[in-house]
Amino acid sequence: MALVVVGSVAYDGVETPHGSVDRMLGGAATYISLAASYFTAVKLVAVVGDDFAAEDAGLLASRGIDLTGLERVPGGKTFFWSGVYSADMNDRATLRTDLNVFADFNPKLPESYRGEPYLLLGNIQPALQESVRAQMQRPRLAGGDTMNYWIADFREELLQTLKGWDFLLINDSEARLLSGERNLRRAASRIRETGPRTLVVKRGEYGAVLFRGDGHFMAPGYLLEDVFDPTGAGDCFAGGFMGYLAGRGVAIDGAEIDFADLRRAVIYGSVMGSFCCERFGVDRFRELTRAEIEARYQEFQACTGF
Amino acid sequence: MALVVVGSVAYDGVETPHGSVDRMLGGAATYISLAASYFTAVKLVAVVGDDFAAEDAGLLASRGIDLTGLERVPGGKTFFWSGVYSADMNDRATLRTDLNVFADFNPKLPESYRGEPYLLLGNIQPALQESVRAQMQRPRLAGGDTMNYWIADFREELLQTLKGWDFLLINDSEARLLSGERNLRRAASRIRETGPRTLVVKRGEYGAVLFRGDGHFMAPGYLLEDVFDPTGAGDCFAGGFMGYLAGRGVAIDGAEIDFADLRRAVIYGSVMGSFCCERFGVDRFRELTRAEIEARYQEFQACTGF
Repeated sequence: MALVVVGSVAYDGVETPHGSVDRMLGGAATYISLAASYFTAVKLVAVVGDDFAAEDAGLLASRGIDLTGLERVPGGKTFFWSGVYSADMNDRATLRTDLNVFADFNPKLPESYRGEPYLLLGNIQPALQESVRAQMQRPRLAGGDTMNYWIADFREELLQTLKGWDFLLINDSEARLLSGERNLRRAASRIRETGPRTLVVKRGEYGAVLFRGDGHFMAPGYLLEDVFDPTGAGDCFAGGFMGYLAGRGVAIDGAEIDFADLRRAVIYGSVMGSFCCERFGVDRFRELTRAEIEARYQEFQACTGF
Repeated sequence: MALVVVGSVAYDGVETPHGSVDRMLGGAATYISLAASYFTAVKLVAVVGDDFAAEDAGLLASRGIDLTGLERVPGGKTFFWSGVYSADMNDRATLRTDLNVFADFNPKLPESYRGEPYLLLGNIQPALQESVRAQMQRPRLAGGDTMNYWIADFREELLQTLKGWDFLLINDSEARLLSGERNLRRAASRIRETGPRTLVVKRGEYGAVLFRGDGHFMAPGYLLEDVFDPTGAGDCFAGGFMGYLAGRGVAIDGAEIDFADLRRAVIYGSVMGSFCCERFGVDRFRELTRAEIEARYQEFQACTGF
């Protein structure tokens, strides 16, 4: 019972007020897979060039992530992105985007992946997300992420794709862009009419809100003393959220859905997003333990319960 | 065992995307008193002109608010403020500020107020806040609010005043301005070194964080379907927070302090702030019932517990 994760595996250059790194392992599927791997078996689908370092593949493998679906293009170069964060780290400017082998990414799922029950579609072109969804035999729970670029310029394709999703993870400004509604509650209602019955709106440092049925659940963001690098935090949220649900074996649209599981999944998502910010890139996951995750989950309980 | 509230009683003109009102009852002390009146006896200290309408005094009196300390200046006009909100209502521009009788406000506490155990100092000049604090015999719990203007231009006076406070309520940008720290946790530590052992940082639609001892408590903002007019929401938060504590008879700096009471006070603050936004000005308080308050408190529990 594994989680299939599709998206980008990349090299990133990042500059924050705490320092800069010219080139380090990154990409949405990388962050999602690492975060989810603490809760469930993960099978990765992505593409890299032959410049992809053995030690980076080794990090993923060390977390038990199945790399059968990690395509390597001979002579190709891995997707590269670089950006610089504002002083308060709430904004970032892209300095460079070299799609490289990612430009022709056309994900093909290995046979060994197609029968898995869980699917998390990282932020890639909506038609590719739909193609991956179609290659799965009968996922119990499928959904993913998207971004402003697809919402603005590939709207019809995205709306077509969303019809087949059980859940969508999206940030607040994107929720407003997708729905045309400024009010978050109204925006959530509109978006859930397009397909996904469960919606998680990510609010950066302010946490996340889950909408499901007539109810919603609000989780605050963890108050970090130092945010070193927010790159990948949203993807780690997604990985923690979906990894936890997969590990629990839930079916989100079945009769057996448990809202309590969804709440806990949001908290685990927040926990994983918070750890991500504590070091540059994926560094925190080189040493993070499940015990630390549980301790932070307890911290969330201690500082939100009344 | 009453709560003494000091601050402005005013007339406001407000324009929001939902409409506009040329002149209506407003002012920090008005909002604080109305919100607090659902939890405890309130004694108001403020100044108005002889244009202050009997029906407005009547609204305050109808909530049991003691108006002995409401000074009326013959021939004077009541403080008037008007402003216009941005489309998303997260910003507002001041159109007009006529201090009128408020310019010479020098609060004198009636004898019948001085022995009360609770004091909430609305946003006025720090030296006046200190003068009021000094007129109280031995408050069990005293604190208040301030704003960017006093932080920037009356810093020394403010720091002197804060030394005598048990708690401070402040919004996040002001917390950063006062502390010189961008990170909220560090900002809170710095501020608490200046005097107030309990700090509440208000984050507008994102809720509030209470800092006390080594711990903190995070409350999300209530997700309103429609925000009609955010004017006074922060003051209603303060009124709900302090009103609840006064009603419970707590001593915040005594040995008997209960963190659980502080958490509940933050939630009641959030509840009162959320009701405030549902109508223009103080209109929601013309009909709000304690039962509605309890129902919303339960809603907060339902959408934050996990």
